[in-house]
Amino acid sequence: MINQQRLWNNLAELAQIREADVPPIGTTRRAFTPAYITGRQWLATRFAAVGLQVFIDAGGNLIGRLPGSDDALPPIMIGSHSDTVMGGGSYDGALGVLGALEVAQTLIDHGISLRHPLEVVDFMAEESTPLGSLLGSTAMAAGLDHDVLMRDVPGWGTLADALRRVGGNPDAVAQPLRRPGEIAAYVEIHIEQGPRLERADIVLGAVTGIVGIRRADITCYGQPDHAGTASMDVRRDALAAVAQLIVAAEQAANRRTGAVATVGALEVLPNQSNVIPGQVRFTVEMRSLDMVEVESMWHEIHDTFVAACAARGVTFAIHALHDSQPVVFGESMISTIESACNAAVGTSMRLPSGAGHDGSMIGLIAPAGMIFVRTKNGRSHCPEEFSAPDDNAASVRALLDTVRALDTMVD
Amino acid sequence: MINQQRLWNNLAELAQIREADVPPIGTTRRAFTPAYITGRQWLATRFAAVGLQVFIDAGGNLIGRLPGSDDALPPIMIGSHSDTVMGGGSYDGALGVLGALEVAQTLIDHGISLRHPLEVVDFMAEESTPLGSLLGSTAMAAGLDHDVLMRDVPGWGTLADALRRVGGNPDAVAQPLRRPGEIAAYVEIHIEQGPRLERADIVLGAVTGIVGIRRADITCYGQPDHAGTASMDVRRDALAAVAQLIVAAEQAANRRTGAVATVGALEVLPNQSNVIPGQVRFTVEMRSLDMVEVESMWHEIHDTFVAACAARGVTFAIHALHDSQPVVFGESMISTIESACNAAVGTSMRLPSGAGHDGSMIGLIAPAGMIFVRTKNGRSHCPEEFSAPDDNAASVRALLDTVRALDTMVD
Repeated sequence: MINQQRLWNNLAELAQIREADVPPIGTTRRAFTPAYITGRQWLATRFAAVGLQVFIDAGGNLIGRLPGSDDALPPIMIGSHSDTVMGGGSYDGALGVLGALEVAQTLIDHGISLRHPLEVVDFMAEESTPLGSLLGSTAMAAGLDHDVLMRDVPGWGTLADALRRVGGNPDAVAQPLRRPGEIAAYVEIHIEQGPRLERADIVLGAVTGIVGIRRADITCYGQPDHAGTASMDVRRDALAAVAQLIVAAEQAANRRTGAVATVGALEVLPNQSNVIPGQVRFTVEMRSLDMVEVESMWHEIHDTFVAACAARGVTFAIHALHDSQPVVFGESMISTIESACNAAVGTSMRLPSGAGHDGSMIGLIAPAGMIFVRTKNGRSHCPEEFSAPDDNAASVRALLDTVRALDTMVD
Repeated sequence: MINQQRLWNNLAELAQIREADVPPIGTTRRAFTPAYITGRQWLATRFAAVGLQVFIDAGGNLIGRLPGSDDALPPIMIGSHSDTVMGGGSYDGALGVLGALEVAQTLIDHGISLRHPLEVVDFMAEESTPLGSLLGSTAMAAGLDHDVLMRDVPGWGTLADALRRVGGNPDAVAQPLRRPGEIAAYVEIHIEQGPRLERADIVLGAVTGIVGIRRADITCYGQPDHAGTASMDVRRDALAAVAQLIVAAEQAANRRTGAVATVGALEVLPNQSNVIPGQVRFTVEMRSLDMVEVESMWHEIHDTFVAACAARGVTFAIHALHDSQPVVFGESMISTIESACNAAVGTSMRLPSGAGHDGSMIGLIAPAGMIFVRTKNGRSHCPEEFSAPDDNAASVRALLDTVRALDTMVD
């Protein structure tokens, strides 16, 4: 029923709208850039051409609304985001928005009416930016803090100004834009961005939830000394202490099922071959669907680091310790999606999402679920990012089935 | 006999000649900069005022010569270097040059004549620069390779041009400027730059040799993946592998006496908190007076790293593996210096130099030795670098005694 070629063409067309002044590697359409705004104008035109009522809410979310037969019911919301990382791919986010559009168009083309209104959404600024991430879905489900809106980021300005540029209203986002009960259900198609579906040779996955994340930003302070004249017994090597933490973090995650731990960013001062590292700033993050596991990993890693620092006479400061809570999707949503996936491709798999998504915000106020699409080599946020046309189409069939099932199930 | 105040004033005056366009922290007079050339002009003026014959050799070394009563004998050479690191101190190098000048002036003031000519030397470019290090002493003892001279370093040009600017002659440095037998002996005063003398509460040290160094420049190649979606069993984390090497390097040095190992420079790509490190470029260096120890440390570290990489499916490439051989000073030189130190301050200590010095080059062609001066908190290459006026003066007394003793001992 869905039109695979139309979906594919839309993906290709949106991918051509990209920033011109960055290296032409991959697809770059970062939130708030002119290319991003152009991309959303293109989307709005498509939404309108299909027959959706188009508006941008105060949180900068682009929404196309299809009235329901009982239009007083809260809407079923489907979609994702159209922004990308620098040098990213053409599927992360875009597939979810254009897949949702394809569902709406298929319903309209075939004269299928839903009881609920249907909202196709392009959430504003899902990816990390200097102004934040998950910004549109946060505005919708939780509101945006005044401090977050007014912080002036060199080269980016304030979020308030950026929000105005994309058609939002920073004066109306202090409170959540939607309350619990105001969204009947939220479902998002997204590429898996990992290797599990491909390894299991399965096209679609029913996502069980979105992992919680603890991220610590730490500086370790030692003493910069000459690497030749400072004997081992007098040196205070910050990097040697941090190395023990890196090993401990990997081990802590290896010992647990479904958990990961990563030291991804690390900078050494003065960073010279013949000078003992006097300072190391780094991040460590831990993820699991079970925050108790995150907590216990952190304790292990922290204890190892405290001992490693004490043994070397170095100290450390934790600048920020940020938790993002896991969202566990409801069993009824998961099994509805699972049935739709099985109908679309014969078999499916349940798996958690290791990455954050807008669903983690909307899941706070509405029944939420996600459909994962097998991703080539598990690669994402890079030019090689790819999900096959057949797989993409299958995910849209599953989303359509899910929406129709939810339409009869939820109020 | 020596004039402590004059020495102190000279040190203070030279320290005021520094680069104007860098942050005014510490003393910055990097080789080949206008400030460096001004500093050497000041030195040349001082050399001449004392009565030395001043010349710059083809290798850019500034030399002040005092004829001997048997002027056909090879010279006894004393000195150090007047260049500094960025943001360094006022004693590293400067004390050795100005201490040598003070010895020459004292001899002249008191009408003491030596059998040998005496040469006070300011070796060109001892510290690390993008054009190399130990450049003047290398030209003197070993010659400079054509490739080293002609390599064009962005922002610095070629060494050949730099050498011309300081009065050297790049066309005459292919062969060593001095042959074995052409320098009777070389002795250098230098601050220890480490904590051993201060911890032992001893002012002066007789240096037993200069450690050998093996330095490896390595890149570890993993795969950059999303820190949430790539489960522990599929990730190829380059930083986790390197962390094991860092720990192994520290352990290898801890197990040995008089050895050190350091990972001082390290850079992660893409260096984002939520991306698994795909590439880590770093240096590891090992030092000991015994190259067999260096070799065995390297084997331990290398074996650990090979296993750590294999366990994670990452690879590595060694871009450069550079050895600088240790120089072990002669027993007769060490004991001559030791006696002079004991005469100057009552007691002394033998210790190796963990840092490279011009003596490691001159030691290849002549009997060489060094006098170490206690350094406050062992700190060097920083604005806090300090050696006390009394200690500096004591080192010059010891150098004067050493020169007079050598004058009777060597031919």
